[in-house]
Amino acid sequence: MSRGIAVEAYEQLVAEGYLESRPGGTTRVARAASTRSTAPRPTQPVQFEIDLRPGRPDVEAFPREAWLRSLRRTLSGAPAARLGYLDGRGIPELRLELAAYLNRVRGTVAHPDDIVVSTGFAQGIWLIATVLRADGARRFAMEDPTLGDSAFIVGTTGLQVVPIPVDEHGLRVDILSRADVAGVLVTPAHQYPTGRVLSPDRRAALLAWADRHHALVVEDDYDAEYRYDREPIGALQGLRPDRVVYAGSASKVLAPGLRLGWLVAPQDLATRLAATKKAIDQGSPAIDQLAFADFIARGELDRHLRRMRPIYRRRRDVLLAALARHLPELRPVGAAAGLHILAWLPAGLDPEAIVTVAAAAGIGIGSLAPGAAIGAVATPGTPGGLVFGYGAIAERAIDDAVRRLAEVIGGLRDSHAVAGNVEAAPEGAASLLSR
Amino acid sequence: MSRGIAVEAYEQLVAEGYLESRPGGTTRVARAASTRSTAPRPTQPVQFEIDLRPGRPDVEAFPREAWLRSLRRTLSGAPAARLGYLDGRGIPELRLELAAYLNRVRGTVAHPDDIVVSTGFAQGIWLIATVLRADGARRFAMEDPTLGDSAFIVGTTGLQVVPIPVDEHGLRVDILSRADVAGVLVTPAHQYPTGRVLSPDRRAALLAWADRHHALVVEDDYDAEYRYDREPIGALQGLRPDRVVYAGSASKVLAPGLRLGWLVAPQDLATRLAATKKAIDQGSPAIDQLAFADFIARGELDRHLRRMRPIYRRRRDVLLAALARHLPELRPVGAAAGLHILAWLPAGLDPEAIVTVAAAAGIGIGSLAPGAAIGAVATPGTPGGLVFGYGAIAERAIDDAVRRLAEVIGGLRDSHAVAGNVEAAPEGAASLLSR
Repeated sequence: MSRGIAVEAYEQLVAEGYLESRPGGTTRVARAASTRSTAPRPTQPVQFEIDLRPGRPDVEAFPREAWLRSLRRTLSGAPAARLGYLDGRGIPELRLELAAYLNRVRGTVAHPDDIVVSTGFAQGIWLIATVLRADGARRFAMEDPTLGDSAFIVGTTGLQVVPIPVDEHGLRVDILSRADVAGVLVTPAHQYPTGRVLSPDRRAALLAWADRHHALVVEDDYDAEYRYDREPIGALQGLRPDRVVYAGSASKVLAPGLRLGWLVAPQDLATRLAATKKAIDQGSPAIDQLAFADFIARGELDRHLRRMRPIYRRRRDVLLAALARHLPELRPVGAAAGLHILAWLPAGLDPEAIVTVAAAAGIGIGSLAPGAAIGAVATPGTPGGLVFGYGAIAERAIDDAVRRLAEVIGGLRDSHAVAGNVEAAPEGAASLLSR
Repeated sequence: MSRGIAVEAYEQLVAEGYLESRPGGTTRVARAASTRSTAPRPTQPVQFEIDLRPGRPDVEAFPREAWLRSLRRTLSGAPAARLGYLDGRGIPELRLELAAYLNRVRGTVAHPDDIVVSTGFAQGIWLIATVLRADGARRFAMEDPTLGDSAFIVGTTGLQVVPIPVDEHGLRVDILSRADVAGVLVTPAHQYPTGRVLSPDRRAALLAWADRHHALVVEDDYDAEYRYDREPIGALQGLRPDRVVYAGSASKVLAPGLRLGWLVAPQDLATRLAATKKAIDQGSPAIDQLAFADFIARGELDRHLRRMRPIYRRRRDVLLAALARHLPELRPVGAAAGLHILAWLPAGLDPEAIVTVAAAAGIGIGSLAPGAAIGAVATPGTPGGLVFGYGAIAERAIDDAVRRLAEVIGGLRDSHAVAGNVEAAPEGAASLLSR
């Protein structure tokens, strides 16, 4: 699974000052690419005029006033010792609030001592992989498709990533049980990016597999608070807290820039994760943790989620309607939850090519390459797809955004025609490109 | 160099709930060590009744009002995009302010693009070691003695730590030049823990060595803002920004709990450090970075340092007087700067034993073991020492603290006498213990 390699490449070039992203949505070679100025080059990720990239919440809606109130209470009330050196588990006040919140809202069985506060999911999965590797583990399984970032991070620790396919019921546990791995990363509530829910049978089979192999299940619960068709699906961790590490973060429910995440782990593992975190960064920043504890305790997190859920739901509805109107050949799935929709492309059409031309036109969007993304267990017939995030785009802008994307795809057809390649396009693509 | 292994062991036991640290300063086995309660166990580092541990600033003096003002301005003014996903270098506003501050106050030659914002020195040295290791480096040199934490962190990346002795002029560059290493970590402005300044000759020799061997010099500038005898000593980085990575943090100048640090690195290395940081934690938290940028820009950091410098200086003077009064056998060195003093013990007296009995009496203090701390290049004749931090203790409490420490050391003599071991104590120790 790639969330737009071309987009990342653009961002990198902008980050390195070779390209400039401009408000009008055009991207061009920077004027002063070869000179150095006294102002920093724009190394923040590029802003697209139209941002349909997945994994991004609405940071415009970040509750600044409420957060500032929590910061003010923290700075007026926290004991001075909280500003000293920290331990690797996190501030006790926050672990207490997180345990209560997760047990109530996500059905976990979490004790404050089992929680390790991290700087987000990326650090959490790095810590888990590092501890597994230190214990001698060599191989670690992931869903296929999955988020490419996670596979990259696990790979940096020396673990070999083993892709396991997902089908309409979620992870293929039968294939997993033939893989010799120390653990597996799953997204049971809302598979990324396909949006499937891990079925009750598969949940039971997965936990039985973990018992049989003394393996670890890592549950990435990245957007489960946003469920539109029913009550949120309870966390796997609640069934077997001794086999499952639960991973959550504030990145989707509040803002990625907070860099606040948490793991709920079996007690011995929690101690080791905390020791590893202590070694690499001396613990997460204190004031943010205390403010977040206050924010949860005063019901502000619940309030924010109650406010955002119908907003995101309406955006999803508008997006589905826009796709039906402007890109009817796409087949949207996984729309019952979260902040994104996967839309399968007609077979043979290259999603990366679409991402590239869309980026050049100021439109950011995610993609799913045909076949497997992280390894060899590809199902050759699987088509590619586009991943539409609706967290960072205003409701009123969605229809026009999809219409412009359809035009961009039409322009891709024209350039193929100019290059004399239109006859090489596969049937499904031709159908799409004929729009 | 060990900053009190016994102290750390105590902290760990308290952290794991097996011991309780009590306000009266006694430590005892916890009542409910084997049961679990719903409140988190006390995993924050233990508070000593008397805290003379090094490396700790006065967190009671943290400028909460000014910091809150910077947070308020950040939350009312920052663009929403700053709350989205971050890059690994850090927020541009902060890098701009840090470059100006460091160039003005520390004599660096820093461009905002050369700066990587980290969560503190621990993460900074981890990032540097990780990138060196990825480039195929196998060995990395450190001063001997040095801070044990740094050696541990570098070791986790797979690099072998090579200890290089320091003498009264600082690092022995002649010995370094016979070691086959990819880089070296130094504390040129205020060697930790001996307090030496790297002499002008040695600075030149160190940079010449780095050129000859294409090696990297990492400059840990951990407490250079506190210099009492003269103007602060300019950073080595200012002489050769292409060979030196400068590392600083807010831990000593403001508070460790902020987890704010920075590296100034040659441009290509800065890019790779930022990419590694992005991979493991997606960048440091945004709101803290923006608040710190505002805090520097409005002169609050300068104001805080101007306020704290005379306070720490008076504490140092009181500590030196108390040592002369209550422990005249100790030989204090390195008192012209920083937040700690190393006091050499009479030869043969075991500093770890003193740390252990002091901890049991509620007194936290650091130690330097006799001979080398991180490896084999020991100078056998080097005595052990105690490291007195005066950052976290009130001026009025210092004389009594040193008097009580002298009593504790006296008690150690008594228990030796009971055990019939007093005749085994070396001459210098006997002199000390006779107090």
